Amino acid sequence: MFFASDNAGPMRPEVARALMDADSGHARPYGADALMDEVRAQLRETFEAPEAAVYLVATGTAANALALATLTQPWQTVFCTPLAHIQVDECHAPEFYTGGAKLTLVGEEDKMTSDQLRAAIDACAQGDVHCSQRGPVQITQVTEMGRVYSLDELRALTAVAKDYGLPTFMDGARFANACVALGCSPAEMSWRAGVDALSFGGTKNGCAGVEAVIFFDPRHAWEFELRRKRGAHLFSKHRYLSAQMRGYLADDTWRSAAEAANAKAARLVAGLRDLPDFTLLAEPQANMIFATLPRRTHRRLHDAGAVYGLWGTLEGDDDEPIMMRLVCDWSIGDDQIDAFVAAAGD
Amino acid sequence: MFFASDNAGPMRPEVARALMDADSGHARPYGADALMDEVRAQLRETFEAPEAAVYLVATGTAANALALATLTQPWQTVFCTPLAHIQVDECHAPEFYTGGAKLTLVGEEDKMTSDQLRAAIDACAQGDVHCSQRGPVQITQVTEMGRVYSLDELRALTAVAKDYGLPTFMDGARFANACVALGCSPAEMSWRAGVDALSFGGTKNGCAGVEAVIFFDPRHAWEFELRRKRGAHLFSKHRYLSAQMRGYLADDTWRSAAEAANAKAARLVAGLRDLPDFTLLAEPQANMIFATLPRRTHRRLHDAGAVYGLWGTLEGDDDEPIMMRLVCDWSIGDDQIDAFVAAAGD
Amino acid sequence: MFFASDNAGPMRPEVARALMDADSGHARPYGADALMDEVRAQLRETFEAPEAAVYLVATGTAANALALATLTQPWQTVFCTPLAHIQVDECHAPEFYTGGAKLTLVGEEDKMTSDQLRAAIDACAQGDVHCSQRGPVQITQVTEMGRVYSLDELRALTAVAKDYGLPTFMDGARFANACVALGCSPAEMSWRAGVDALSFGGTKNGCAGVEAVIFFDPRHAWEFELRRKRGAHLFSKHRYLSAQMRGYLADDTWRSAAEAANAKAARLVAGLRDLPDFTLLAEPQANMIFATLPRRTHRRLHDAGAVYGLWGTLEGDDDEPIMMRLVCDWSIGDDQIDAFVAAAGD
Amino acid sequence: MFFASDNAGPMRPEVARALMDADSGHARPYGADALMDEVRAQLRETFEAPEAAVYLVATGTAANALALATLTQPWQTVFCTPLAHIQVDECHAPEFYTGGAKLTLVGEEDKMTSDQLRAAIDACAQGDVHCSQRGPVQITQVTEMGRVYSLDELRALTAVAKDYGLPTFMDGARFANACVALGCSPAEMSWRAGVDALSFGGTKNGCAGVEAVIFFDPRHAWEFELRRKRGAHLFSKHRYLSAQMRGYLADDTWRSAAEAANAKAARLVAGLRDLPDFTLLAEPQANMIFATLPRRTHRRLHDAGAVYGLWGTLEGDDDEPIMMRLVCDWSIGDDQIDAFVAAAGD
Repeated sequence: MFFASDNAGPMRPEVARALMDADSGHARPYGADALMDEVRAQLRETFEAPEAAVYLVATGTAANALALATLTQPWQTVFCTPLAHIQVDECHAPEFYTGGAKLTLVGEEDKMTSDQLRAAIDACAQGDVHCSQRGPVQITQVTEMGRVYSLDELRALTAVAKDYGLPTFMDGARFANACVALGCSPAEMSWRAGVDALSFGGTKNGCAGVEAVIFFDPRHAWEFELRRKRGAHLFSKHRYLSAQMRGYLADDTWRSAAEAANAKAARLVAGLRDLPDFTLLAEPQANMIFATLPRRTHRRLHDAGAVYGLWGTLEGDDDEPIMMRLVCDWSIGDDQIDAFVAAAGD
Repeated sequence: MFFASDNAGPMRPEVARALMDADSGHARPYGADALMDEVRAQLRETFEAPEAAVYLVATGTAANALALATLTQPWQTVFCTPLAHIQVDECHAPEFYTGGAKLTLVGEEDKMTSDQLRAAIDACAQGDVHCSQRGPVQITQVTEMGRVYSLDELRALTAVAKDYGLPTFMDGARFANACVALGCSPAEMSWRAGVDALSFGGTKNGCAGVEAVIFFDPRHAWEFELRRKRGAHLFSKHRYLSAQMRGYLADDTWRSAAEAANAKAARLVAGLRDLPDFTLLAEPQANMIFATLPRRTHRRLHDAGAVYGLWGTLEGDDDEPIMMRLVCDWSIGDDQIDAFVAAAGD
Repeated sequence: MFFASDNAGPMRPEVARALMDADSGHARPYGADALMDEVRAQLRETFEAPEAAVYLVATGTAANALALATLTQPWQTVFCTPLAHIQVDECHAPEFYTGGAKLTLVGEEDKMTSDQLRAAIDACAQGDVHCSQRGPVQITQVTEMGRVYSLDELRALTAVAKDYGLPTFMDGARFANACVALGCSPAEMSWRAGVDALSFGGTKNGCAGVEAVIFFDPRHAWEFELRRKRGAHLFSKHRYLSAQMRGYLADDTWRSAAEAANAKAARLVAGLRDLPDFTLLAEPQANMIFATLPRRTHRRLHDAGAVYGLWGTLEGDDDEPIMMRLVCDWSIGDDQIDAFVAAAGD
Repeated sequence: MFFASDNAGPMRPEVARALMDADSGHARPYGADALMDEVRAQLRETFEAPEAAVYLVATGTAANALALATLTQPWQTVFCTPLAHIQVDECHAPEFYTGGAKLTLVGEEDKMTSDQLRAAIDACAQGDVHCSQRGPVQITQVTEMGRVYSLDELRALTAVAKDYGLPTFMDGARFANACVALGCSPAEMSWRAGVDALSFGGTKNGCAGVEAVIFFDPRHAWEFELRRKRGAHLFSKHRYLSAQMRGYLADDTWRSAAEAANAKAARLVAGLRDLPDFTLLAEPQANMIFATLPRRTHRRLHDAGAVYGLWGTLEGDDDEPIMMRLVCDWSIGDDQIDAFVAAAGD
């Protein structure tokens, strides 16, 4: 009963197979492998962006930090939410890679509105050498609380960014889950909605460790390549990244894996929703559930072997609600979901 | 006929098998996987170092840059050779990760002597706030020209470092090949020879992408962990790094793969040695050959489909010798070696 | 009628005289001047801290950034208020000098309470490699809104820091004004109150450009010296910094200049206090006044040639209050103060 | 008898007077002082460069590091000589400010030829993501060994830089001394000779602490301003920098001070030249002398109270020559020079 994160499951079979298929003979290193040529074409086709600059790295933090560094000057500030992964979970990788940029926290928790964004940008006095200068707008889609910006919301945010001449970067660690939730195409959720660059996550959705970084404006290409190497994120045996991404893109594996994960989370929510004392903190839209349950229920789940994110301790008043995060990856079994629901409802 | 590098071959079957074996069910992320516990124990046993702090990263440059940054202050200089990988091939990753340390170039090409090292350290005036301060000594083993420091040479270098209170870091991207060449144990070639920290390379010797970083003094552990995360080199699905290293360590796969690679290179040298106009630039000791051949021979090899490192161009005087680098990985076929020799000798 | 800042007035005569007295013959460079020996002794005596490490730099931002960098690891966060100078007015100098540390904003506007500080530190999960690690507590005294922490408040804040093993740094750009406001000694307002390091500002209080940095724990000395040189803040003709500080310390010039400045501000407040529609935003305790007046009054003052900080524009509704910052340096004439009050009251 | 450096003398009277003249009333801070407007116009006129972007900082290292950082990407290398001040004497300030650029050492000691420069640039493979990328050419004029590049030499170097599209930066800490030595105008020795940016030193030539940074291409202006503030090198009481530079520029004080210094050095050389066992290491062209004398002579000079740079120790064989550096600033008295010569010749 592993619901702690979607970074803990195995590879999707299509991905594992592609990885093994790539494992023979010699291949040119450092991204010059023939597989990468295929991946580049596939990604451009998937995103309907024939000119896009496309790269692979192995971790989501690398994708975020390297892409943001390419878009941000050290004296600029990145506009993001208080719960943004880049703010909360990356041990200052953005600050390190940008050479000391700031993050300006906009909105509440995991989402910002276009009005909040405009106010935050306005509050950042441009042209005053003492102050942070305005930098990129960063949006996480699916958000860190499991919510999904609608296309209208995205367009409103990027429109504000464009008003000020600022680029928009999307942390798409769960891009696929959001796409599935919105029922839209990758292009609709990215450049057609005004996004300038994004990460397209594979790791949480059936790969072993691969993320694509996509710049719709290819002028960033060479700088990104230098930053990637300087950050030690250029793989010599790059084919093993390429292969994962190839398996992930072929036959829309990325989409079917995300459909599976979202469906699992829906099944879990459906099972929990009617429990007394179960309270959702946000209506789940993709594959993450933030909710509270009484501590006694947590203890029961814990004793039953369930693993999940918990804010607070098991010790304390039985009736007191505490907060949990439940994430479903594509591989979690329906039996485990049902067992979890059963244990919670006991 | 791929002799361009040992970073282009496939996984050793034992490694690929371990990777696939690990690919089921859920595993705790970020290095908390049970496999990493096994790897940690294996590495400590392999190095006879029960207290060592042991970590995995995916690239050799990450191993070098993160380990050096842990050992170096930004105002210090690292003593290394002019051809050191950290100087020549890492796009300033060491400077980036250390926050602006310098590299002081010691010796000729790929090797330094203890006298040269002592002179270089002496020339670096300690206690003068204007100057670079003395930092770690960096040794690459196998060197970038394919040579191997003897244990006596290593001990002489680390003895100088210790005279000045400086740590020694070994870039062991080809540690296994050197160990095999010297016929010694990992402990003999590391801490028993005075080395304080090292990378133990897997990628070039049968893994897909994994390097161990080992600090014999565990006080560096927590700082290294923070630096690894901040550098975006901590894998969420860490088990896929652990699994590779586990397959690499089990049954001394690392040793048998290196034995194979070194033997392949020996076969290649034996075949080339008697060619007229073949000149070795250094007597090969592991799996790399640096030599010159006349340009006409290069053209013939090139036409035959051979791939290898070349300093210079194919265009020009037929008789003029130009420089080549030939590297054998464990997987290169004897038939390919023989075909190469035949084409060279035509 | 210059009330925009205390960084715009001339040198206190004692300081100017010391500067000119130092201007003859040759003096050893880079802080080895004999004057610096005197300054070091004077500062240690002034702070009753015979072991303190004591340095001079030329700007307040240099003092803050270099001292914080000495106390902060790149993966740590500095606890400061939302209006802290280091957050608002230093163009990322703290991030640059620390190598990418964060600032965690505590309290409201310019002050934090010990409870707020404790909560903020608690919220910063220690030992989780993904998160910011806890770093120094930064206090500005006089605050950026012109308020002064009482000795009790200071002690409460540093006690919290000590509970967590964190150092406290005081931005003392207006240390002298605060000391005068509290009627206490430099030692009482620094190490006796639990402060570990501070800047002791001269520039805003009668010098041309000099700030002392003081570490009560001298183990930071050599690192600070290296950081100062690496930051290009070590003066070759250091005697011109030493001389200013010598004139500033001799005969408690620092104190008499601050007494003058605080008294000027008190005179100004007294004159304005009875104006209808004059509202203080904080009760001034030192030499800065934050207040609102109706826009019509601003226009009148502006037309009369008064210069001061203004949040908002002169254009708009006559009756609407807008916010102003009035700062008195030691040199502002009583006639100018009275003229200002008269113009405001017209 | 102070010949250790030209960073140890007093202010030129014209400079001291300008400083004191500026010391009354209030002046706008942070470079908005009216004096800076005058200085800007004066510098542009002096350099016949009406569009140049012109800034002041207080140290030579700040001028070098900030200007180079503006011209250099972190993955680029700066071409300079092995004895360049930025390589030898700035405690990694260039690496710090550039975010980890390298310095590639060209030529012997303090000078490079255009052929050497071309070879070094050629050796830096462009477009290979693993390698240092080509960055600015840095020239020190007067060199660190007291030599002066001729205008022809300068033009040859900058022509090579332009061939590769690289900017040229001149460290002009002793720009005035070189100008006087060559008998040329500031424009001839800078932009007319192909120099793109430079520092124009005041500190070593009669100021207390001020250096101008000049970009002939004003597009660098805003970035430089941000870098200066972020580096904590923007003075609040900027008028005290402006005033020095104003006094330095008015009536060509910079030139007369340098003429004095160069003449002093010529007098000193003339006195020493005929001593038996006196050997010049380079024919002095400006105000610095590098030479050897037997150790017994050094002892005598030392006992007589002479202060100068010495490579080696006083202890040892009487007859052995050791190396000294003698620098004359404008203020050194003829009596001191003559006393030095007398002591040396005893």
